[in-house]
Amino acid sequence: MTAPDIDAGLLAPGRAGTPAESATADTAFLRAMLDAEAALTRAQATLGHAPAEAARAVTDAAGSLRPDVTAVAHRARDGGNPVIPLIADLTAALPDEFAPYVHRGATSQDIMDTATMLVAARTADLTLDDLRRTERALSRLAAEHRDTAMPGRTLTQHAVPTTFGLKAAGWRSLTLDARDRLRAVRASLPVQLGGAAGTMAAFGGHGGRQTPDPAERLTTAYARETGLTAPDLPWHTLRTPVADLAGALAFTAGALGKMASDVLTLSRTEIAELSEGAGGGSSAMPHKRNPVRATLIAAAARRAPGLAATLYASMAAEDERPAGAWHAEWETLRDLLRLVGGAAHRAAELTEGLRVHPDTMREHLESTAGLIVSERLAAALAPALGRARAAALLTELAARTRTEGRSLAALLAEQPELHGLRLDIDDLTDPTRYTGSAGALTDRALERQ
Amino acid sequence: MTAPDIDAGLLAPGRAGTPAESATADTAFLRAMLDAEAALTRAQATLGHAPAEAARAVTDAAGSLRPDVTAVAHRARDGGNPVIPLIADLTAALPDEFAPYVHRGATSQDIMDTATMLVAARTADLTLDDLRRTERALSRLAAEHRDTAMPGRTLTQHAVPTTFGLKAAGWRSLTLDARDRLRAVRASLPVQLGGAAGTMAAFGGHGGRQTPDPAERLTTAYARETGLTAPDLPWHTLRTPVADLAGALAFTAGALGKMASDVLTLSRTEIAELSEGAGGGSSAMPHKRNPVRATLIAAAARRAPGLAATLYASMAAEDERPAGAWHAEWETLRDLLRLVGGAAHRAAELTEGLRVHPDTMREHLESTAGLIVSERLAAALAPALGRARAAALLTELAARTRTEGRSLAALLAEQPELHGLRLDIDDLTDPTRYTGSAGALTDRALERQ
Amino acid sequence: MTAPDIDAGLLAPGRAGTPAESATADTAFLRAMLDAEAALTRAQATLGHAPAEAARAVTDAAGSLRPDVTAVAHRARDGGNPVIPLIADLTAALPDEFAPYVHRGATSQDIMDTATMLVAARTADLTLDDLRRTERALSRLAAEHRDTAMPGRTLTQHAVPTTFGLKAAGWRSLTLDARDRLRAVRASLPVQLGGAAGTMAAFGGHGGRQTPDPAERLTTAYARETGLTAPDLPWHTLRTPVADLAGALAFTAGALGKMASDVLTLSRTEIAELSEGAGGGSSAMPHKRNPVRATLIAAAARRAPGLAATLYASMAAEDERPAGAWHAEWETLRDLLRLVGGAAHRAAELTEGLRVHPDTMREHLESTAGLIVSERLAAALAPALGRARAAALLTELAARTRTEGRSLAALLAEQPELHGLRLDIDDLTDPTRYTGSAGALTDRALERQ
Amino acid sequence: MTAPDIDAGLLAPGRAGTPAESATADTAFLRAMLDAEAALTRAQATLGHAPAEAARAVTDAAGSLRPDVTAVAHRARDGGNPVIPLIADLTAALPDEFAPYVHRGATSQDIMDTATMLVAARTADLTLDDLRRTERALSRLAAEHRDTAMPGRTLTQHAVPTTFGLKAAGWRSLTLDARDRLRAVRASLPVQLGGAAGTMAAFGGHGGRQTPDPAERLTTAYARETGLTAPDLPWHTLRTPVADLAGALAFTAGALGKMASDVLTLSRTEIAELSEGAGGGSSAMPHKRNPVRATLIAAAARRAPGLAATLYASMAAEDERPAGAWHAEWETLRDLLRLVGGAAHRAAELTEGLRVHPDTMREHLESTAGLIVSERLAAALAPALGRARAAALLTELAARTRTEGRSLAALLAEQPELHGLRLDIDDLTDPTRYTGSAGALTDRALERQ
Repeated sequence: MTAPDIDAGLLAPGRAGTPAESATADTAFLRAMLDAEAALTRAQATLGHAPAEAARAVTDAAGSLRPDVTAVAHRARDGGNPVIPLIADLTAALPDEFAPYVHRGATSQDIMDTATMLVAARTADLTLDDLRRTERALSRLAAEHRDTAMPGRTLTQHAVPTTFGLKAAGWRSLTLDARDRLRAVRASLPVQLGGAAGTMAAFGGHGGRQTPDPAERLTTAYARETGLTAPDLPWHTLRTPVADLAGALAFTAGALGKMASDVLTLSRTEIAELSEGAGGGSSAMPHKRNPVRATLIAAAARRAPGLAATLYASMAAEDERPAGAWHAEWETLRDLLRLVGGAAHRAAELTEGLRVHPDTMREHLESTAGLIVSERLAAALAPALGRARAAALLTELAARTRTEGRSLAALLAEQPELHGLRLDIDDLTDPTRYTGSAGALTDRALERQ
Repeated sequence: MTAPDIDAGLLAPGRAGTPAESATADTAFLRAMLDAEAALTRAQATLGHAPAEAARAVTDAAGSLRPDVTAVAHRARDGGNPVIPLIADLTAALPDEFAPYVHRGATSQDIMDTATMLVAARTADLTLDDLRRTERALSRLAAEHRDTAMPGRTLTQHAVPTTFGLKAAGWRSLTLDARDRLRAVRASLPVQLGGAAGTMAAFGGHGGRQTPDPAERLTTAYARETGLTAPDLPWHTLRTPVADLAGALAFTAGALGKMASDVLTLSRTEIAELSEGAGGGSSAMPHKRNPVRATLIAAAARRAPGLAATLYASMAAEDERPAGAWHAEWETLRDLLRLVGGAAHRAAELTEGLRVHPDTMREHLESTAGLIVSERLAAALAPALGRARAAALLTELAARTRTEGRSLAALLAEQPELHGLRLDIDDLTDPTRYTGSAGALTDRALERQ
Repeated sequence: MTAPDIDAGLLAPGRAGTPAESATADTAFLRAMLDAEAALTRAQATLGHAPAEAARAVTDAAGSLRPDVTAVAHRARDGGNPVIPLIADLTAALPDEFAPYVHRGATSQDIMDTATMLVAARTADLTLDDLRRTERALSRLAAEHRDTAMPGRTLTQHAVPTTFGLKAAGWRSLTLDARDRLRAVRASLPVQLGGAAGTMAAFGGHGGRQTPDPAERLTTAYARETGLTAPDLPWHTLRTPVADLAGALAFTAGALGKMASDVLTLSRTEIAELSEGAGGGSSAMPHKRNPVRATLIAAAARRAPGLAATLYASMAAEDERPAGAWHAEWETLRDLLRLVGGAAHRAAELTEGLRVHPDTMREHLESTAGLIVSERLAAALAPALGRARAAALLTELAARTRTEGRSLAALLAEQPELHGLRLDIDDLTDPTRYTGSAGALTDRALERQ
Repeated sequence: MTAPDIDAGLLAPGRAGTPAESATADTAFLRAMLDAEAALTRAQATLGHAPAEAARAVTDAAGSLRPDVTAVAHRARDGGNPVIPLIADLTAALPDEFAPYVHRGATSQDIMDTATMLVAARTADLTLDDLRRTERALSRLAAEHRDTAMPGRTLTQHAVPTTFGLKAAGWRSLTLDARDRLRAVRASLPVQLGGAAGTMAAFGGHGGRQTPDPAERLTTAYARETGLTAPDLPWHTLRTPVADLAGALAFTAGALGKMASDVLTLSRTEIAELSEGAGGGSSAMPHKRNPVRATLIAAAARRAPGLAATLYASMAAEDERPAGAWHAEWETLRDLLRLVGGAAHRAAELTEGLRVHPDTMREHLESTAGLIVSERLAAALAPALGRARAAALLTELAARTRTEGRSLAALLAEQPELHGLRLDIDDLTDPTRYTGSAGALTDRALERQ
């Protein structure tokens, strides 16, 4: 009997087929665990704790081992983690003389955590690539539409005009914030090396006051071999790296989710100010063009916070290795990495293909017959009429634009109390003349790299 | 290039190899989608909306189709769901004449949701089996240890004596609560059938005031063909079934998590009142016997609430099909089903093998030199000394048991103010005589079936 | 110095001033704790464990005590819960002779949990009242708009027509689902009575095999005095009632959140098919009418799942009283009760005042020039043209309606291949003739009481 | 009728009476809103957009206004936020001539968000103070107990020895990580200034290409007046500051939660290696000494992740002001700030009073009769016996220590196969000689400031 395809991406179009999915697959974790074992033996060899031949042999064996993932998964049950059966396989693949140099002094968590950091680093790099593509596409859109006026909307209602350039610049700003946070965390990801209870006792450290302690030297060497950083302390139950990943990934999902929310709103049939370059079809309705990418990003943004919460909660881990808190991290962090990596990939596709419809935006600016600039009019009339009277007059005229179907400009022109005021009604009621500092804000935001 | 093993259970020893894992695999979902399509055509045939031959042909083709899961997953991206490519495959496997009877009148969500309910029903049944095993094992333990006294612990400290029977009866009570909730939800799981926007327009309904409406008859027939229930309304955005599953599954994880918390605490090296039948080994420490099953259940209990929260949040789904809220459910519900199904399986293993150590429990009852019955003594002394004086005396003597290493009984015997009271100090300070109604409560709790 | 107003509702317009807010205030909890103490003494008196005079005296003292909430809160710190200082105050308010009958045999958690259940029951009743108002308003709306056609929308795009009646019937169905779940939980809420470690030892139980055990009789009497139910077992760490509340409340928030999502969408300036009866104003923009109630309900729906998750996670409570899991419930459950109670109140206001704009709905049905019935046309053309050709033709014509600004009906009339088909194009492209079973579904859904 | 005490801290002993509670009270928010209004007028005055007299008058009026919090809260309902009624009160308190200079050009969210940042900054400062106290106490403990050996525990079981110094150094390391994250976020908190839809149109900006734009100058001046930073863009729906606070606060709760988990475990009656300086009493059990502070911190650590998740989810905010996502932040962020601030305060109290019991730690090291050093023995025997034989021998002897009640040292001494090996059994089985690099790691960790 072959194992079922437990998860091949069928329920996850947001990440199916993306680089992040491959980088976080079970096979990628298995590979990273073998990389971690080999790097440890090499690190020990550089300090003379293992023969160079052993390091080469372990590296070669780890490199060519192709374990059956499902079998390892099933054998993981008794010990509670997959490193135990994997060590058995790796040891069996070695000449007897080198067997003692596999996993020497280490605990399963050293390998599991180091492998997780390797997977996280690799996936973060892919995600950063997609954030870069997204950011560039948004730069182009913001620059191109610096002065494309559209309705600003608050609490679902037209408020005052804004520009699509400012909106795209805002999305880009969040994308850069996400990039900065993810990049910083990625650069900090450490190896794990503590041994059975984090004292590094089986690595030959002695706790004396010599500097550097042998344990410290080994950690440094291990970091060098893996490309990760060397932590101050083993972090078996000091879960800073996992919590930092949780935060940066939840942030990234939220940043992309903001953009997706806007694209979904602005893609609505009645609004149609934006459309995805290649919208999703429907089996039953030939005319449908669904904003599929925005939908999938929005779904990721709904899921990421709950996953991050589980990881933050796992910080409260008792003892030197907790019974549950650590295990709760495994799938959760993987899911979060690939969810966000997938969302970033869809965001790159979305922004590179996004179509903007300035004419529709302009139509909507006109659709409230001038009400969208009522704030401006209130300010313009206040000096002459007083703030309260200006507001009351505009509230009254706003109601009449709705009931009478006439424009605010026309109604204003009929008001006797305004006749002496020399107001340029046409200018005051032109929505494109009331975008404030949108252009300047866009320019400044685009200076950030 | 073959697809990577995205998830074969490597990071999930809690469910690796369990029935719930197979029942929720991508292949199981694909199978359920094909079942849903075939059942729909059969339901239409029973009402004369499709030829009987078409129903047979679709059923046969669906039964023998073996789609490449990864390929379907990748083709799902454009339309945003896997039903669209699957219909194409199923249609291609049929003679041309029957092709029109596949998916007729339906929308992708009809199939996706119905398939999800089929998977949920099947997994719930497996989980209920394991809850039944768990409950039986706990019945035995509670009855056997009805009078096995042990320390009751509150805020980590010995409080007053309790019994292991009462503790096991409590675990069983929660298990039965979980069973009741999961069973009720499982029995209520409905088919989904609404068509493009939930009006069933393409199924030939007409909205008239005839009874029953053709759409209602079709829903009933569809329910019969699938073994699910017939809902009052299409529930594309009325997500009661998903929310109910979320609640019942989070409850079940919590119920098992309570037991796991206790087993972990009582398995501690210093406590050792319980041990798992076959504990987990360690690669480095030959003596270790880890409570692996309790650990894996505890991990599930940490993860389930966050997943359930995502599902509850998805109830706020706009329109007739939401852009994101629905998609956020897919993996989340699957993960929750298999996480809890796996935890129930581990709970059955745990309870059937659990070893109880009454002698150790007894030792711990004695370990505080009588302090564990201070409540009883306070009550016994209060009538004579007054409540305040009784409490003050016991607080003082409690401190002296610690500093002087003598028993509370011995110190009490020396108190002049107690000499006239005819107290049976031996009885009053015997922890096994102060288990209150633990036995009666256990008996009563075990009457529940 | 007076204490600051820590929380008077300033940040919570969703519940400020609602009945649920008062019912869950600190003062309401304090009152419920005093009620719980008094009911316990009365229950003991009915069994002859306390003099009737003591029961009266405790009831009177509890009834007239007006503790300073802030002072009790501050005194709660040392013992970790507010019951300890409250007992001191209550005892001090009694004649010495009755002091021994306060809190006799009980533990703080007995009072805290019972008080919480009293608060939950009272708040649930208020919430059920508001759900009833909401349901009735929705019944009226659904009946009145049974045949009011409007666009059905999926993934933000027009799909096929639906009716506002069906939409309102769906909201009502969710409201009834919420009512059923909340009502069931409310009816099940139990007293807590276990004593120090849940064995009821200090209540005079003896663990013998007599029936009924004195402890059972006391629990029954306590339930009678409080109006709550009598549980099988003390539930200090068997948190079924709290988890059930979490589920029912998260469900209710989600149910109302669905409606709020729809109202917000349909209130958009460009859509405007619905509006709140009395929309919210804006200080700066005289024309604004914000859907404030829907906004506040939507906010509640975003917050409830995270609070419920914390409560589900607290089920995994170790020992006979956990160090943290119980304490994490207190504010969380209170916040959830008042959040959802507030949302239900806003929902009643919203639905009773909701304004429906059928003309705008009709305009939108026409706005896609017939594309909204493309599914119907595909089905109608398929028998003659074949499914594939019908879909291809409609996809082509859909594109032309957009580029040429002509209606689908007009374009269809020009298609030579359709000339012989005797199609009633006007009927086929009339959106109001393609609402399927919406009417029948609405009728059926409204039969549910 | 007076308003009920909605929340005076009764259900929150973790923060009742702490500085963070006062700093986040409704009255503190109201004060911050008034500060924000006054600072805005002053900023406008510095640029010549308002008379200096107006700035003084608004500052004075804001400073002396004492609004009724409950009344403002109730008046907030219609507009959906409390700024609207507050402006009315502030305006009414001014001479007519200065009324136009209140809230000029601003939107409610500008004030609400700026006030929230002021509250967050003030509360973060208080929390940082308590983290500093905690860190210092932990430094002392780590240094003092650098060589105090105790059992290292993994998956609830004794693993190998560690030291209390290393454990305390680990707690300190997490505390410093929390400090760094919170400090960085606190330093970055920005003013909000965007006007109705984030274009700053009513502030006199013009969108031209002059540098700096008047809007930019006003933002800079506003930042100066408030002590916050000047953002690149209005962040009405770019919620980086809120998400960053969510992450840093959830991190802090988790960091303190780790320590609390350990203190709770090590305070257990059977373990008793630590105790809180002033433990909590119990009303019924005179002997109880509950670890109350650790309990309250643990409760906070359970609640913070769900609150942070809600804030991360609110990043996906549509439009220029979202209908729900923003409102969901208000109470959630406040609750998180005061929960974590309270936990930090309890942590300072806990660590400053923590009592360490080295003798008990030593007893526990001996309690497994040598098994705690089985890893060391396995390594020592492997060269002579081979890895597999060494492990098998130790597994056998471990079992015999349990069944025969003899020490591992004694059993080893009897093994013929070891006789020729010149092993120093006493040294090898001395737990205090197998703490590895614990001392060196502690030293290094303490170097970090």
